[in-house]
Amino acid sequence: MSEVINISLDVMGGDNGPAVILEGADLALVRHPDVRYHLYGDQEIMESLLDDYPRVKQASTLHHCEVVIQMDERPSQALRRGRGKSSMWRSIEAARDNQSQVCISAGNTGALMAMSKFCLRTMADIERPAIAAIWPTLRGESVVLDVGATIGADAQQLVDFALLGGAMARALFGIEQPTIGLLNIGEEDVKGLDEVKEAGRMLRDFEFPQFKYKGFVEGNDLGTGAVDVVVTEGFAGNIALKTAEGTAKQLAEYLHSAMSRTLMAKIGYLFARSAFQRLREKMDPRKVNGGVFLGLNGIVIKSHGGTDGEGFASAISLGYDMVKNGLTEKIEQDLSVYHKNRVVPDEENA
Amino acid sequence: MSEVINISLDVMGGDNGPAVILEGADLALVRHPDVRYHLYGDQEIMESLLDDYPRVKQASTLHHCEVVIQMDERPSQALRRGRGKSSMWRSIEAARDNQSQVCISAGNTGALMAMSKFCLRTMADIERPAIAAIWPTLRGESVVLDVGATIGADAQQLVDFALLGGAMARALFGIEQPTIGLLNIGEEDVKGLDEVKEAGRMLRDFEFPQFKYKGFVEGNDLGTGAVDVVVTEGFAGNIALKTAEGTAKQLAEYLHSAMSRTLMAKIGYLFARSAFQRLREKMDPRKVNGGVFLGLNGIVIKSHGGTDGEGFASAISLGYDMVKNGLTEKIEQDLSVYHKNRVVPDEENA
Repeated sequence: MSEVINISLDVMGGDNGPAVILEGADLALVRHPDVRYHLYGDQEIMESLLDDYPRVKQASTLHHCEVVIQMDERPSQALRRGRGKSSMWRSIEAARDNQSQVCISAGNTGALMAMSKFCLRTMADIERPAIAAIWPTLRGESVVLDVGATIGADAQQLVDFALLGGAMARALFGIEQPTIGLLNIGEEDVKGLDEVKEAGRMLRDFEFPQFKYKGFVEGNDLGTGAVDVVVTEGFAGNIALKTAEGTAKQLAEYLHSAMSRTLMAKIGYLFARSAFQRLREKMDPRKVNGGVFLGLNGIVIKSHGGTDGEGFASAISLGYDMVKNGLTEKIEQDLSVYHKNRVVPDEENA
Repeated sequence: MSEVINISLDVMGGDNGPAVILEGADLALVRHPDVRYHLYGDQEIMESLLDDYPRVKQASTLHHCEVVIQMDERPSQALRRGRGKSSMWRSIEAARDNQSQVCISAGNTGALMAMSKFCLRTMADIERPAIAAIWPTLRGESVVLDVGATIGADAQQLVDFALLGGAMARALFGIEQPTIGLLNIGEEDVKGLDEVKEAGRMLRDFEFPQFKYKGFVEGNDLGTGAVDVVVTEGFAGNIALKTAEGTAKQLAEYLHSAMSRTLMAKIGYLFARSAFQRLREKMDPRKVNGGVFLGLNGIVIKSHGGTDGEGFASAISLGYDMVKNGLTEKIEQDLSVYHKNRVVPDEENA
């Protein structure tokens, strides 16, 4: 396939300014020369910065936007102020109008989700969107969703998330039939939320051909990679994600302090330097940068706001890979198989 | 104070049998010679094992129980079969009848919670019990509750958990006025569950003299120790706890594999051995073994089922420290201050 992949970037989003976004675009372009960018932001700023990135300049179309959404702006205000004209809105709109196949922003998450919902709308048969995270595991990587799009989810919405996450795992990991688990808590007495139990029954009964439902998983199964896709509602999912990030930082801190405490430890550190380097790379949060908004009519990726060029390039690569592997088509296919074969009576027809 | 501390032990609970429990009792007795045990279990087994632990034998009263609750038994069945006569029930009952000041079991968590609720009943003014965990942080330790007693909690129940956790932090960490945070998710758009927001308002308005309410915290604040007490409902709390445990194991695995990969790394490991030893001790899950059931008329501690003697000794030490520092009195005092000064109209009187 020699077709180019079009990606729209919100150049003004993020804590570290447009230079980081363009640096990321440059790094990603080296890896994926078939990418074309649509850049949304302040024309003057973009032009002056692009002098440093001739490759990006050549591969890009610039779109001037006067409004920039602030990192601390409330979503409702961002929507009012930025709808139709902010760099964030217009980069999303490009994905809606098929000018781009994926939109990437490091901006304000709440505003990005609000605008994405408003601009792209949820897919037919999907009630609510989810944010999917790539979770590094001992076996490789898993997809975990929802990590914070919406609080709470009923059984049908959890089943929808399973479908969306399954399609993403197929597109991203190249697995024919990913395994899926529902995040729950283990004690018999309180074995989980009613909606989780009900979603489990639905997933088991349906015998969906494109993934294998494996039952409940617990918080400690996330790191081992017990399943390819972990499904949960956004409150618990967000807390799990942030807790894992916090624990990783905490242990890195312990390790650092242990290694700098004595002379012997410092000498040991020198010998094992390349091993520590490997470990650092393994734990590098920039490598798995990007929350994917699923369930909307268009793909939007939220990069960490505080990322650097390397991290933003990872978010672009993530989008590139998903487009290249037909994520949207896979989701549509999965949904249509599901809704054609669904035996559960539809509430609307009941 | 030369008064002894009486502790009741469910000798039959746990994955690894009575020997581990008695080994833990022995280790704890060396640290706290003023402990006296009430041991509940099979008389013959206890007697034959106690030949190896003369110290424990001397400091203990044995109580024969014929029924043993299985690790995989459903709570309802355990209650039916074991009420009044199992080693688990009777060790809890001892705490109710003031024969012991704290009960410790490594048995089936669901059964232990069900029996504790049934036998001890919740305190006046407390609707539901919570399980509190000690969370190791960069600053020291925090109390996190509820980590799995009950799913969901309304605003009043979260405020109750704050009171219970605050009293535990005062008893355990010797802090006059512990800081308290409510676990929530950060995005503006979905800023948390309504009940969490309402609990935040209640905690702010009340200006409770015995702790400082610090507002919302997120999952990544758990590891840094942003507050002394983190309050959440049991589903999210359990997932956070298990996720942190899983992440710690995952990173230990990464470290181990990095350190054994090359000769240089192995040499470095030898030099830094004592640093790794420190790190291992820091991360040793046995050191913070014990979930504390709060909100009942009696203190029950659940040890990890799979722990060894060292871990079970930690659970005993935890109970010892809390009793020594007057946890029960502190809880009662805090509750009475709260309910005397509460301005919020009571639903029952409304």
